[in-house]
Amino acid sequence: MKPFLVVPEEAVENLRKSRYRVGVFGFGHVGLTIGVGWGLAGAKVIGMTLDKQAIRLVESGLSPFPEEAYLSEHIKKLRSRGLLEVTDDYSYGARETDIKIIAVPVYLSSDKKPDLTPILTVSEEIGKSLAKGDVVIIETSIPPGTTRNVVKPILEKASGLKTDEDFALAYSPERISAGTVLADYLDKYPKIIGCDSPRSLNLVANLYSAVVKRGVITMSSTIAAETEKLFEGVYRDVNIALANELASLCEKIGVSYDEVRAAANSQPFSHLHSPGIGVGGACIPVYPYFIIDTGLKQGLKLQITQLARNINETATQLFIEKIVRAIRFLNMNPSECSFALLGLSFRGGTSDTRLSPALRILEFIEKTGARIKVCDPLVEKVEGKNIEIIRDWRQAVQGVNAIVIASDHKEFYRIGIEEASSLAGREIAILDGKNVIGNLNVKPKSRVLYAGVGRPAYLLEPDGSKKRVEL
Amino acid sequence: MKPFLVVPEEAVENLRKSRYRVGVFGFGHVGLTIGVGWGLAGAKVIGMTLDKQAIRLVESGLSPFPEEAYLSEHIKKLRSRGLLEVTDDYSYGARETDIKIIAVPVYLSSDKKPDLTPILTVSEEIGKSLAKGDVVIIETSIPPGTTRNVVKPILEKASGLKTDEDFALAYSPERISAGTVLADYLDKYPKIIGCDSPRSLNLVANLYSAVVKRGVITMSSTIAAETEKLFEGVYRDVNIALANELASLCEKIGVSYDEVRAAANSQPFSHLHSPGIGVGGACIPVYPYFIIDTGLKQGLKLQITQLARNINETATQLFIEKIVRAIRFLNMNPSECSFALLGLSFRGGTSDTRLSPALRILEFIEKTGARIKVCDPLVEKVEGKNIEIIRDWRQAVQGVNAIVIASDHKEFYRIGIEEASSLAGREIAILDGKNVIGNLNVKPKSRVLYAGVGRPAYLLEPDGSKKRVEL
Repeated sequence: MKPFLVVPEEAVENLRKSRYRVGVFGFGHVGLTIGVGWGLAGAKVIGMTLDKQAIRLVESGLSPFPEEAYLSEHIKKLRSRGLLEVTDDYSYGARETDIKIIAVPVYLSSDKKPDLTPILTVSEEIGKSLAKGDVVIIETSIPPGTTRNVVKPILEKASGLKTDEDFALAYSPERISAGTVLADYLDKYPKIIGCDSPRSLNLVANLYSAVVKRGVITMSSTIAAETEKLFEGVYRDVNIALANELASLCEKIGVSYDEVRAAANSQPFSHLHSPGIGVGGACIPVYPYFIIDTGLKQGLKLQITQLARNINETATQLFIEKIVRAIRFLNMNPSECSFALLGLSFRGGTSDTRLSPALRILEFIEKTGARIKVCDPLVEKVEGKNIEIIRDWRQAVQGVNAIVIASDHKEFYRIGIEEASSLAGREIAILDGKNVIGNLNVKPKSRVLYAGVGRPAYLLEPDGSKKRVEL
Repeated sequence: MKPFLVVPEEAVENLRKSRYRVGVFGFGHVGLTIGVGWGLAGAKVIGMTLDKQAIRLVESGLSPFPEEAYLSEHIKKLRSRGLLEVTDDYSYGARETDIKIIAVPVYLSSDKKPDLTPILTVSEEIGKSLAKGDVVIIETSIPPGTTRNVVKPILEKASGLKTDEDFALAYSPERISAGTVLADYLDKYPKIIGCDSPRSLNLVANLYSAVVKRGVITMSSTIAAETEKLFEGVYRDVNIALANELASLCEKIGVSYDEVRAAANSQPFSHLHSPGIGVGGACIPVYPYFIIDTGLKQGLKLQITQLARNINETATQLFIEKIVRAIRFLNMNPSECSFALLGLSFRGGTSDTRLSPALRILEFIEKTGARIKVCDPLVEKVEGKNIEIIRDWRQAVQGVNAIVIASDHKEFYRIGIEEASSLAGREIAILDGKNVIGNLNVKPKSRVLYAGVGRPAYLLEPDGSKKRVEL
């Protein structure tokens, strides 16, 4: 019997005994994680994606995401038990499943408004095959009100069924971070669940309790749960923008932001963030616009949220200008330089380059006509570009005039100024966009101009002397 | 021998054996805490203040701050051991001490610039009596660079001595919060210490290690330590402003900010703050302006920091407008109402009313000509006003039309809507500026309009029905 037609305890039992099929609509980074998570709980999972390569890889028992290579083991296990199927046929997935989880992304349009098209398409598809007793869950981050005001009417119209009476509807945001997706989903955080009826909530909370290990937090409505997820992102975005602002002040007054931050955060009410060269990824740069848009529709201007976005979007350009100033400081011309760009992903430990500041830096350097070598230990290709990606930073910095560090991969924390100087074999500028270099008390082979973020810039001489400079 | 003339270990030994006299310049909330802290470590403390009543109280073995009543015990003990003297004679204190700790406040001028006058006056006084081997420490929160660029030249000029050679100079910010000052100073957080020479740093770090229990964090310069303290405050101010902004959105879309916040903060990277009706106290509303001013002098506009200030300064006015709308909603006129204002202090658990939003609300209500009863369990008087302050909220709400809650004293968390309604004996509006009331599923004697901060407003009827209303 379908899950919404039995008591929750029985539904959980059925899930565990592989009597339910779970469709995951959108089988990217998020969808795959959800699919593996539910599969491990016992469900028969059908993952749906249009990405042929991802389908091929999963069918071969491999994770399509290099930084989540550990997933391969789980994928193989689930495949061998017949618990994981993957297809590009969404209508098949909609037809054959009892529990339908939506994990397609929501993008921003060019005017920074949420584009719900993928959600609408998938909801329509699900609605057409929706049966009495089914469960529909949305895990995608969406603007507040979308579940109740957009998805629910589509499902009801296409199916002729009634939400919370004939089928269960829930919003339960994924809270995963690239590099540790499965642990994030299953072990690290409680699962947030919002429904608009106690009956749906009771069922879905029981189901998730069988999937995740840290328990569930039930909320009073779908809109509260939708809002929750977006606020997590806005908090981060605003605090990164504040860090950028305070880091700029630190550079001006000759103080290390990192030192100040560590000291301030020694009391438990202070959580100053790290500054950066722009915020990338598919989440933080996007969610604030959902909230801003929701505010505008209510006649409310979200000033801090918008300003933080502006600051974080400008941060990359400011770093590019710093690169130019540093190179000019050494009496070189950017277009005549040879660059090493270390890092392409939007942060360390992931191959994800979506909205990565590194790509904007790459574009800038290419535009100057300068020579450039690009290094990233995880990223395999850059969409639309035919560039060779070097794995080892040591190889990338040989013979260059300037080293630009744009992601904080763990390998880069091993970069030492003396070694980099020797490998470059000439006077160099190091633009450390992630403050991965700790030791500035060095004797480089040739003069080094070092500039990080939120710390004073220094000229480091072969005799070990260190002079603060204004960039 | 004076502390800077012996090895640090010997200086600590001398401190413990009551061979050193410590002058605390400014003996208010902060200064008294410092004095008691150093006294408990063994120092002979001379506290200096112009507040005659504080002198009288301390000489009688009493704490001048009702919420820190527990301090009385320590004051008595130190007095009986001859370790605590208090005087209005700053020149005597400067002459007679080996270690001089500055704890006078820095205020803002009317154009929001730091007014360093008290620091200048005290530095001059200390400089005149400064002896070889003395130690000078500043604990007041001050703009970055003040120790090195302002205090140091004054001390050197007035004394003819050289900093870090003849005497030690340090900046070490207090990190105390009204209500728990001594525990904050001694037990809770590491003590931050910044000096501009290793020799001063070594001595002062050793001395503080003998005073505080959580150890010390040494910083690379006085300016880094000054910056650290201010950034703690800016972080709070910005995050309270963000909470206010997001709470407004929640009110509009019918979601409880508190519920969303609790769920979001279930992951360890989210620290969404609570919204409010303005930020009071002598710290948070002031420090951002020090940073803004420092930025301006460097040609840098601190946009988020300034915007957060604007939002938090506007919050009180927005709450006042909500009070008016709520009263009009019940077809009453504010000027013809009888109000109960619960809470005068800038937050719960303190008698401190400096920059308290409650005072602005009080002024507004007084201006309308309405009758008003004021209740606060800790505040004893309001500067410049001759008003009776009722201790018990139950007494204050009798017969009123509107209850405005403006501080989150622990007593107020016991306010129940049913009891308040019965005591008022008529239809009332409850404006809960601190969201102290939890239960809205009630059957009040008469109709109640309830409005909090970041939660939808409700009409609560005697039959137990609850209707959301737009205010």
